[in-house]
Amino acid sequence: MMIVMKEAATEDEIAQVVERVESVGCSAHISKGELLTVIGAIGDRGKVADLGLEGAPGVDHLAPISKPYKLASRELKKGADSILEIGGRKVGGTNFALMAGPCTVENRDQMLDSADAVAAGGATMLRGGAYKPRTSPYSFQGLGREGLRLLAEARERTGLPIVTELLDLRDIDDVVEVADVIQIGARNMQNYALLSEAGKSGKAVLLKRGLSATIEELLMASEYILKEGNENVMLCERGIRTYETAYRFTLDLLAVPALKEQTHLPVIIDPSHAPGRRDWVESMSLAAAAAGADGIIIEVHNEPEKAICDAAQQIPTSEFQDLALKLETITGVVGKTISRG
Amino acid sequence: MMIVMKEAATEDEIAQVVERVESVGCSAHISKGELLTVIGAIGDRGKVADLGLEGAPGVDHLAPISKPYKLASRELKKGADSILEIGGRKVGGTNFALMAGPCTVENRDQMLDSADAVAAGGATMLRGGAYKPRTSPYSFQGLGREGLRLLAEARERTGLPIVTELLDLRDIDDVVEVADVIQIGARNMQNYALLSEAGKSGKAVLLKRGLSATIEELLMASEYILKEGNENVMLCERGIRTYETAYRFTLDLLAVPALKEQTHLPVIIDPSHAPGRRDWVESMSLAAAAAGADGIIIEVHNEPEKAICDAAQQIPTSEFQDLALKLETITGVVGKTISRG
Amino acid sequence: MMIVMKEAATEDEIAQVVERVESVGCSAHISKGELLTVIGAIGDRGKVADLGLEGAPGVDHLAPISKPYKLASRELKKGADSILEIGGRKVGGTNFALMAGPCTVENRDQMLDSADAVAAGGATMLRGGAYKPRTSPYSFQGLGREGLRLLAEARERTGLPIVTELLDLRDIDDVVEVADVIQIGARNMQNYALLSEAGKSGKAVLLKRGLSATIEELLMASEYILKEGNENVMLCERGIRTYETAYRFTLDLLAVPALKEQTHLPVIIDPSHAPGRRDWVESMSLAAAAAGADGIIIEVHNEPEKAICDAAQQIPTSEFQDLALKLETITGVVGKTISRG
Amino acid sequence: MMIVMKEAATEDEIAQVVERVESVGCSAHISKGELLTVIGAIGDRGKVADLGLEGAPGVDHLAPISKPYKLASRELKKGADSILEIGGRKVGGTNFALMAGPCTVENRDQMLDSADAVAAGGATMLRGGAYKPRTSPYSFQGLGREGLRLLAEARERTGLPIVTELLDLRDIDDVVEVADVIQIGARNMQNYALLSEAGKSGKAVLLKRGLSATIEELLMASEYILKEGNENVMLCERGIRTYETAYRFTLDLLAVPALKEQTHLPVIIDPSHAPGRRDWVESMSLAAAAAGADGIIIEVHNEPEKAICDAAQQIPTSEFQDLALKLETITGVVGKTISRG
Repeated sequence: MMIVMKEAATEDEIAQVVERVESVGCSAHISKGELLTVIGAIGDRGKVADLGLEGAPGVDHLAPISKPYKLASRELKKGADSILEIGGRKVGGTNFALMAGPCTVENRDQMLDSADAVAAGGATMLRGGAYKPRTSPYSFQGLGREGLRLLAEARERTGLPIVTELLDLRDIDDVVEVADVIQIGARNMQNYALLSEAGKSGKAVLLKRGLSATIEELLMASEYILKEGNENVMLCERGIRTYETAYRFTLDLLAVPALKEQTHLPVIIDPSHAPGRRDWVESMSLAAAAAGADGIIIEVHNEPEKAICDAAQQIPTSEFQDLALKLETITGVVGKTISRG
Repeated sequence: MMIVMKEAATEDEIAQVVERVESVGCSAHISKGELLTVIGAIGDRGKVADLGLEGAPGVDHLAPISKPYKLASRELKKGADSILEIGGRKVGGTNFALMAGPCTVENRDQMLDSADAVAAGGATMLRGGAYKPRTSPYSFQGLGREGLRLLAEARERTGLPIVTELLDLRDIDDVVEVADVIQIGARNMQNYALLSEAGKSGKAVLLKRGLSATIEELLMASEYILKEGNENVMLCERGIRTYETAYRFTLDLLAVPALKEQTHLPVIIDPSHAPGRRDWVESMSLAAAAAGADGIIIEVHNEPEKAICDAAQQIPTSEFQDLALKLETITGVVGKTISRG
Repeated sequence: MMIVMKEAATEDEIAQVVERVESVGCSAHISKGELLTVIGAIGDRGKVADLGLEGAPGVDHLAPISKPYKLASRELKKGADSILEIGGRKVGGTNFALMAGPCTVENRDQMLDSADAVAAGGATMLRGGAYKPRTSPYSFQGLGREGLRLLAEARERTGLPIVTELLDLRDIDDVVEVADVIQIGARNMQNYALLSEAGKSGKAVLLKRGLSATIEELLMASEYILKEGNENVMLCERGIRTYETAYRFTLDLLAVPALKEQTHLPVIIDPSHAPGRRDWVESMSLAAAAAGADGIIIEVHNEPEKAICDAAQQIPTSEFQDLALKLETITGVVGKTISRG
Repeated sequence: MMIVMKEAATEDEIAQVVERVESVGCSAHISKGELLTVIGAIGDRGKVADLGLEGAPGVDHLAPISKPYKLASRELKKGADSILEIGGRKVGGTNFALMAGPCTVENRDQMLDSADAVAAGGATMLRGGAYKPRTSPYSFQGLGREGLRLLAEARERTGLPIVTELLDLRDIDDVVEVADVIQIGARNMQNYALLSEAGKSGKAVLLKRGLSATIEELLMASEYILKEGNENVMLCERGIRTYETAYRFTLDLLAVPALKEQTHLPVIIDPSHAPGRRDWVESMSLAAAAAGADGIIIEVHNEPEKAICDAAQQIPTSEFQDLALKLETITGVVGKTISRG
């Protein structure tokens, strides 16, 4: 941390800052310039972060220098990409993961028809929600264990690994039994108890960025999973909240190169939730691939206009194969290949 | 829900929308204007919300008409304010709650000294965190049960009701034993399992607005608590995330009149977290009272410059009494009185 | 405009709203539902927009129904795309415009070398700024008329049409003499005097989205140009301001399908300013093309590391040709071709 | 500027950064820590700001140290507040300016009735718009010169100094003839030609913060006025754009202490535009005063429900006196007095 003092800071104020830094066991390095004095605080990251010198007498502002994450950082792998193996499919490096399936498991026919279609279209994994986080307590909350059972059946039939969301710690055993990838939703990105337990489960985890989380906060959240010894983490951008109301969320594709610079973990894009309507999903899917994402997770439904939830944004299975073909060309331009078993 | 059709919408497209509305058991009322056709969808709220007609052929946009919350709505109380009673203190109506205390329980001396000072200064309740949500897994996570024990001791000594945060469902029994008010933090505003269980606990709940949650989402989250039969809910604005980086968060005081129009629940302001530095906390505390808030929850510490966490934003106990006096004048201007036992 | 009344609205309050609507010469259509009354206000758009009934007694909220823009709307062209012809180059429809060149005209060698390189690489038009809007009055403000002269020389040499920014009404004659396309920068998106005069100039206009302008405000701003009888308008997304600080701006590619749904005008992406650093520009350029944009406007410099302004984000001319080749493949996937003379 | 290098930065990359810094005539100071190397670039502010090293090889990030503004900075006045004198009224220090009047000059009766009422209620100055910036070219654009004439008449009658907006450079002579304070609206905060000319006019200037401008950008914009030798500048927060749609803008009262720390200029709040409805204006006016603002500029109309523009947010003259009384008490709590002639 660098503590930048005001131009008018007195010797006494400088001394007090140094004292505070040293009082928590860190060391203070003073650089006096022509106009300004800057004090570098070096030591334990947690203690440096908690110095609390913002607004202290004579202090102008604080500027962090070192990154607060360690296990997620690209430096850890000496610049290399992590390549995950999930149910025989690779994700990361030159392997593009095409995860597809319905928003929610609704019933056996819907789930199996959708699964068959995305398998035939060349998906890498199958997604489907058994537990749904809903803004309103009066909305449909998912089929629960029955939904998990149908996902297991779909996997058996298609061979596709399963991505499904974990919402509540009390369901973890049920979810772990079926999921190849545990999804942590945007609302739970900072539900630390859930992150730690997902980490301990040993399953791969797809961690979605909170709707106003920074790149750095997403990486810090992944640290809660990684520190449990679980290296199979994918990060997922799904749209952030901005002032624009013409769409549900603003899909932030700059997060792709920005995250890939900082971390070795694969970066996935969810192109369905930000538009909130199916006719804009192809555009965002292709853009995600062109931006260099390591995969997309997309909502596909056999009869989207009848879907119980997020009906507007699921694309019909009939359009999935054409999208997969376009993605093949575009991933080729950026040196990737769609990962298949 | 009103479904506004495009100018160029065909009869066929209109018919398809009507069919979709009726297929979920709702009724459709068509109004044809000179330029536009508008279709009103009437029926079960959840089903109307899940129609999924955004971007459907011929549809321009959807405009909600009725509010999705019920138990939180001002209509429920025929326009009256809820007045909560917590440990003998009233909150709501003309009663202004002055909740104060350290960010975190650190040790016995710190906790009891701070508690004594805020009690002497005329606080309504005592706050203090035993479990702390931290962005980094490497930061101090709170004293846990030992922290709760010290809070209980502080209550016994001062008579002040205790406000303390619940982070993890697995700690609920311990927290309920001590807390008069369970705080749900901003990161957990949409942790629905936690909301429901806090609702069932029977304790009063202080629900903080998520850092990018809308007024409506905050009210919907409170609905998860209220539907368990727990009417003792306070809503708390604590700063939202915007593009401005000169402060940690942007304190949104317009939320006070906006919330009070929609809901009968008391509206509290946290003036400490948005500035993130103590010299701006008084300004925001007075502004909150002038804006018509039903209370503030403020961080006060006996030795803030030595605090383990959020050191920069806690005001010293020595300044608390003067702040309380200013608040007394300002709450008077807007027809309220600081609530004391 | 639909005026949605509160559930508890009285007959009297409804009558007052109707009276207000009729007092400005509009007509009011009342629909009474089971719970709610909705009043449609029909008439002159400007008057309807200025009714001022937000927060009036009994009024819950107002929901606009018809769009405030006319000349920019897709309906005007019966759903077709506008195809502009600028110096023999087509923009719009299946024609992808690749506009490239340095941020600022710095000197003859820099300008002509950069121009030669982007011409050789297959650019559609040449960009370069003679007048620069700078946050600080102490920063370099552009070469002015000398810069315009060098742009004219570059056009003569390469045959490429020129895109250059107009900042100050008092420079319009000089700019019009040289520019094939007048650029209106993001800071000036709502500088209405400038928009009208650019409209009257008869030159094509590239209008950049303000950094917190909505899709609708961008379209309304274009209306100021179009109403002067100038149909040659391109809209340009260049990054919006959000809470994320890992990049200068958040590039909002969802604006591409959202704008193209509403308007017949071509939609261009500036992939340089949002990242603010050159190593992320290719990623955003390819993503823009994949998202279906009608072109990009990109900063290319012969010696970017020595550039006077925006040095970090200009790509070297040596990388331009490779980028153009990748764009060729990606535009092909979405049914477009790079437009060349 | 501090240039923080990546942990893995090579000696060569460090040397290249130093070379770049020195190539623009600045000096580079290298500090090698245990993990990181930090390079301080010292020299001409403009050149340091334009180094363009973001994303350069080995560079992690850049952290500014010195402030880019000079004339606006509090240091310039050695920590004192500027106290402006405008038509015999003081603004700044302990003097609270209560500026009030209609949004727009509509006609003689409306203007004079409103002026009389705010004068009787104890206003410091009179506001009224003759030129109106409108999102739509089809909306009422103001009375223009006739409006200015009516403002002059109102001043003669009431003795109150006039605050009125300048939109277009071509109107500056007319506006200067009448205005005591030239208002620069939010949309024009970065219209640099307008700022410079307002600076040269010698009139006091009220500069509104752009709707997504940072504190620092507002100060930089004021620098364009101050550098013309005009010291009579007031800064005005009027609401910023955020994701929240329950109000037109989010009023950012933290800007008050944050600006006052950085600058000697008075800080004014506009409590009318952010709520966009009159019943929330009192709440925000009182909050502004409690937060320590140096004044408010508020819309007051003799018959607000018939106003041509912004009808919803203007308070009736009948409520103005009561508001002024409440403001008197609250400004007293924070050590200020309403400024009167």
